[in-house]
This record gives sequence, structure tokens and C-alpha cells, in this order.
Amino acid sequence: MDRTTGAALVVHGGGPTQVINASLAGVTDECRRHPEITALYGARFGIDGVLSSDFIELSSIDEARIAAVGRTPGSALGSSRAAISAADYARVLDSLAARGIRFVFFNGGNGSMYMAHQLACAAAQAGSGVRVIGIPKTIDNDIAGTDHTPGYGSTAWFFACAVRDIGEDVRALPGRVSVVEIMGRYAGWLTAATAFARAHPDDPPHLIYLPERPLAMAQFLADVESAFRRRGTVVVAACEGQKDEHGRPLGDLMRPDGFERQLSGNLGHTLAQLLIRELKLNARSEKPGLLGRSSMAFISEVDWREAYLCGQAAVAAAVGGHTDAMVSLVRAPGREYRVTTGLTPLAEVAGKERLFPLDWIAPEGNDVTADFLDYARPLIGPMQFHARL
Amino acid sequence: MDRTTGAALVVHGGGPTQVINASLAGVTDECRRHPEITALYGARFGIDGVLSSDFIELSSIDEARIAAVGRTPGSALGSSRAAISAADYARVLDSLAARGIRFVFFNGGNGSMYMAHQLACAAAQAGSGVRVIGIPKTIDNDIAGTDHTPGYGSTAWFFACAVRDIGEDVRALPGRVSVVEIMGRYAGWLTAATAFARAHPDDPPHLIYLPERPLAMAQFLADVESAFRRRGTVVVAACEGQKDEHGRPLGDLMRPDGFERQLSGNLGHTLAQLLIRELKLNARSEKPGLLGRSSMAFISEVDWREAYLCGQAAVAAAVGGHTDAMVSLVRAPGREYRVTTGLTPLAEVAGKERLFPLDWIAPEGNDVTADFLDYARPLIGPMQFHARL
Repeated sequence: MDRTTGAALVVHGGGPTQVINASLAGVTDECRRHPEITALYGARFGIDGVLSSDFIELSSIDEARIAAVGRTPGSALGSSRAAISAADYARVLDSLAARGIRFVFFNGGNGSMYMAHQLACAAAQAGSGVRVIGIPKTIDNDIAGTDHTPGYGSTAWFFACAVRDIGEDVRALPGRVSVVEIMGRYAGWLTAATAFARAHPDDPPHLIYLPERPLAMAQFLADVESAFRRRGTVVVAACEGQKDEHGRPLGDLMRPDGFERQLSGNLGHTLAQLLIRELKLNARSEKPGLLGRSSMAFISEVDWREAYLCGQAAVAAAVGGHTDAMVSLVRAPGREYRVTTGLTPLAEVAGKERLFPLDWIAPEGNDVTADFLDYARPLIGPMQFHARL
Repeated sequence: MDRTTGAALVVHGGGPTQVINASLAGVTDECRRHPEITALYGARFGIDGVLSSDFIELSSIDEARIAAVGRTPGSALGSSRAAISAADYARVLDSLAARGIRFVFFNGGNGSMYMAHQLACAAAQAGSGVRVIGIPKTIDNDIAGTDHTPGYGSTAWFFACAVRDIGEDVRALPGRVSVVEIMGRYAGWLTAATAFARAHPDDPPHLIYLPERPLAMAQFLADVESAFRRRGTVVVAACEGQKDEHGRPLGDLMRPDGFERQLSGNLGHTLAQLLIRELKLNARSEKPGLLGRSSMAFISEVDWREAYLCGQAAVAAAVGGHTDAMVSLVRAPGREYRVTTGLTPLAEVAGKERLFPLDWIAPEGNDVTADFLDYARPLIGPMQFHARL
């Protein structure tokens, strides 16, 4: 084994999750076990902190505090959505060299994996010997090259419980319709998970729409009308990024200049208004929004453990000589859920989006299949259901 | 003591809460202890079930199931927002007489207490001997004649935790503003409780607006701009029923014909759009909506106990000869939180709204005072806070 020694750096990218700090704790704890790693820094506010050399020395923080931070949602280091230019990679390498950093861990989504790949290439070209490992993180579950992503299970659990609870409220006062807006800009993985809200087949959500399949307004209205006629109440789970049959966003999304991909959408409200106007229904909307990925009450234990494990595996991989790779979660075959970590070349991951498989959407386009439920069930937390008279 | 014997009936009114079923369990358990009560019925879907004689016999349901139902949010009986006419009270009395019902418990908010009062008057006029007791219930905490209302503490706790969690998310990615829309159509009690999200004075929410005080747009923009300049991120807690200086609802509320007081509002989004447009801020909104009053994860233990206690006290009061009264929660003087139940004449409660005291709003109009915090602190569940590096 190549006995490179030096400092290490961990960088967050993109939105926080319930378990990104778990990966941070995994990295920190594992670094303490490797004498090759002389110090561990954390970049404040993502790549911006790297460029401005704004670092926290994580290796000097005591283990109890790291453990406590590891158990709380949000990004304790701070994060960034900034994209950097080709010229910036040289500046990043300078910033690393100044601190003697030889190991870099990017914890983020597709964009961060792209950045990690670019940095790994720049480091190789420069012969700097810096090793770069990606740690997957996104509530959206849309990173390629891994069975699923840390962050998904907790937020999926939140939204399944939210739809279950809202559904019980709606059930108590007949005649109502609620459209629940679920996070997920391009991928429907989170919206799909609301199917776990059901204890019985007829329970909410009664309609589930995923952005992978365009939704014609006429179809939506027909679906809701039919469901309402049958039950007298309807709960719809719809993805914030849902598009209509012409590819136009349904949620009347605003993209103010300079806030790339920062949606200030309003899908649930838009659909509820449509139901009021067109079908004269008593419709309303709920949009938990950021709460879905930040709720302290919804940390899936499996998700937490895997996020921690990915942090540990990243350190082991870097110390073991790997670079330009992302840690992946690998599901063992068989009925029992077991997961190990692997490594995927960053080039196979960078900038790609893994959408929800079309054959896991029910033929009617308003539900998911049992195959998806089997896939996602182990990832979320335990579902309790309402006792009824 | 007047030894009236007969059956009893419990009726839900208005929106469900996390603990209305706790009151139901309190009523059911207490009825079993009184031989004067020969059977207990529950009306399906509120007053509609009374008029159509759609009853469940609660006294025949085993205790374990009642206990389980008592622990879950939502209205297990179903509820109604229907108003009934003067002529309907005679029909209600007929429906009661047909089942030998002598004790009636209305579990609801202002509207239900009005209905209970009218029924008590009609029963007295008819010499029917039917006794009517109100059990307070509303997340809005706006019922007169009681220190606070069952339902408030749990939903207040939900929104405090929601703002804490959303605040931690916003903090991780500088430059963002989130407007969190809090339930409460006319009263600001729930919005005020988001102040418990703070572990430190500078924590979110940075601005709290209550509907008892009109909010001028210019003031709102100036407040947000100033808070943003100071911190680089802002979290606003705003009440869905907030009005501007001209008394107009800020949330662009729609009131479709026939859905009295059923708001399909959009306050958070409207304010976020305003911030984008006027201040060029990266603003968004969250609206947990019905989840705030239905979340299984947020049942405040104090709230649950008091809701159960109110159900018990209602039965004891009716058996003891009282009628035309609402159970109240009475806070003992002194530093330690202790509560007993009392009785308030329904005439003093019916149709009244107890708004948030203006002198508990900070002079700037964008925060609450320590007096409110002292009042509300015992009612919510325990607040955990994020560990930080």
C-alpha cells in the first residue's frame, strides 16, 4: 500500500439532509484511526470555504461533540450550491497544498460528484498526489452508481408519515381534498415513498404522480373526480417538479435570475386551485418543503447507519490508495436486507441523474408498483398506523 | 345528587387535533365508572351523525382499543363543520330521546360550544332533562373561559420544532430566506409558539408576525431587509390569517362559495414572491398545513393528559347534575405548572374568540414577549436543539 500521509479535508455540497452530519461523523471517527491522516479539516460553506481557505479543524474537536453533531440534521459545516470554473481548480489545489491536504472528501449530490471528478482530474494532471473520494448524499435518490443514497430514507420516511397523518385528518371531515407537495425536482423517488402511508389499499395517498411521467391536466381532473366520487375525500401526493404533457412545469415555478435551479414553486396550491375552479371541490394544499429534509423527528436508523458507513468507507478508500471514485451502497441479493459499500468511478456518476424507473409506475400513471415498495421498504423508518374504532 | 340515569353521547365538531381522541378516551373510560350512564354512543361525523342517528356504541368497544385510539391523532369518530338551524335542535332532541340519551358531550371549538349552548337551551325549554357539557378543543387556543385549550400544546410544539429544523437547513446555505406559514386563521397563538425554536436569541425565527396586529407591506420588507443584512439568512414565521394595514388578507385567500371559513390560502408563497420581486432575495416558503395538527410524532404529553382529563371531567360534571357548561382548564398560581379543571357557563364561551393579547407582542410588532413564553412553555413538548461544531 502506498503510504501517503497528510491532512484530509471534507467538503459539503448542495442541500442539507437529516444525515449528512452522520457521514461527517463517519469521516471524522475513521480519520482518527489512520495515522496516515495527520489532521482533518472541514470546509466552511462548501467549495466557497475551500477557495477562501475557511476551514474548521475537525480532528481537534472532541469525540462526544462529533457524535452529537452526527446525530442532528442540517449541515454542521455549512454547504454551497456554487459552481466553479475550470480555472478555480488550480486555486483549489493551491489551497489544499497550503494546508498539506492530500485526501479530499466531497459529500454531496450529482453536482458535487462532478466537482470531485474535475478536481481528481486536475490533481492527477498536476501530479499533486491529492486523492479525491465522493460520498453520496441526496434526499432525491438520483445519484447513479449506487443502490440508493444516504439521505433518501429519512426524507422518504418523513413524507410517508406526513401523508399518513394528513390523510387521517382529511378522512375525519368528508368532502375535502388535499394536494400534498413532495420534494424532488426531477426525480419521483420521494413522492413514490408516500405509498408507505397506506395500511390498507384504500388508504391515502389515493393518487401518486411522479415527474418521470408527464401529467395531462385532463387526466389529473378525471383521476381526482373519480377518486372523490368513490370515497368522498381524496389525498394526492404530487412532486414539486411535476410537468404537464407539454413539458411545462405544473407548479408555476419562478426562477429568479441568478438562482439557478432554486425553485420557488407552488405546485400543490396550483393544483388545489385547479380543483376548486374546475371541479368545485373543497381542495387545499400542504407543502412541508424544507421540513421534509430537516426534521429531527425523522432520522431513519438504517439511513443514519449507512450515511455514517459511507463516511468511514471514503476514508478507508483514500488511505488505501483510491482516488476519483465515489463510495456506493451495494445491496446483497436475497430477501434479507444487507448492504456493503463499494467504489464507483466518479466519471460514471458525475452530472448524471438516476430517474425513477418507468416500469415501477403503475400503468394508470397514478401509483407505484410492488417492486418499488420492496426496494424502498428497508430504507425508511418504522410505520405506525392509526388505531380506529 | 340528582340520580338521572340514561345513555350518553359524544359529538366531535370542527377540525381534528392530535389529542381530540384523548378526550374521547377520557369520556369513554369515565362513563364506564358511572352506573348512571347506561351506554355511551359516539356520533359519526359530528352533528350530521346526530341528525341522521348514525351512532357507534363506544361502551361496547374494549378498553385496549379505546386506549389505542386515544393515543392517535385525528378524529376517530369523524367530525363536521356544519352549522344547524334553530329548527334542527328539536330534531336533535328527538334523535337523543329515541336512544334514551340524557348526557351529551360536545368536543370542539367556538362553533361547537355555540351549538352546545343552543342545545342546552332547547333541552331546558322542552323540559327534556338532557344535560349538555362542552369539552374544549382547538389547536388555535382561541376559546374563552379556559386558561388554554387541549390541542394547542401539541400543534404549538410541532410548529416550534418545524421552524427550528427549517432554520437549521436555511442556516447551512447562506443567502436564503424562508417564510414558514403557520396555522391559525384569526389568532396568533400558534405562530407565537415558534419562538420556542430558539436556543439562542439570534436563532430562527428572526421575525414573527401575528394576525392580531396588521402588517404593512412596507414594514415587512424593511424588517426582512434589515434582518437579512445582519445575518445573511432569514426565517419568517407568519400566520396564515395575517392581514395588511387595510385589513385585507395577505395570503390571497380564496373562499369558494359554500365553503365557509375554509381557506385555501397561500400566505407563505405570496410573501416569498414579494421578497423575490421587491428585494431580489432568494426566498421560498414552507406550509406544513394540516400536518401541524395531525402529526403523530408531535403529541405533547401535557396536552394529551389535559385532553384526557377534560373528557373525564365532562362526564363527572354531567353526572353531577351540571348542564350548559364547558369544562375549563384552570392554572394554579405560582411558578410550578399545575392545572385543575373547572366549569364555565357555555353562554360566556359560545361564539367568542380569545385573541392573542396585544401586550404580549413586542413593540416592534415582529416578536413575542417573555410573558407569552412563560405562559406557553409548560404546554409544549421538550425542545431539543442542534449540536454544533
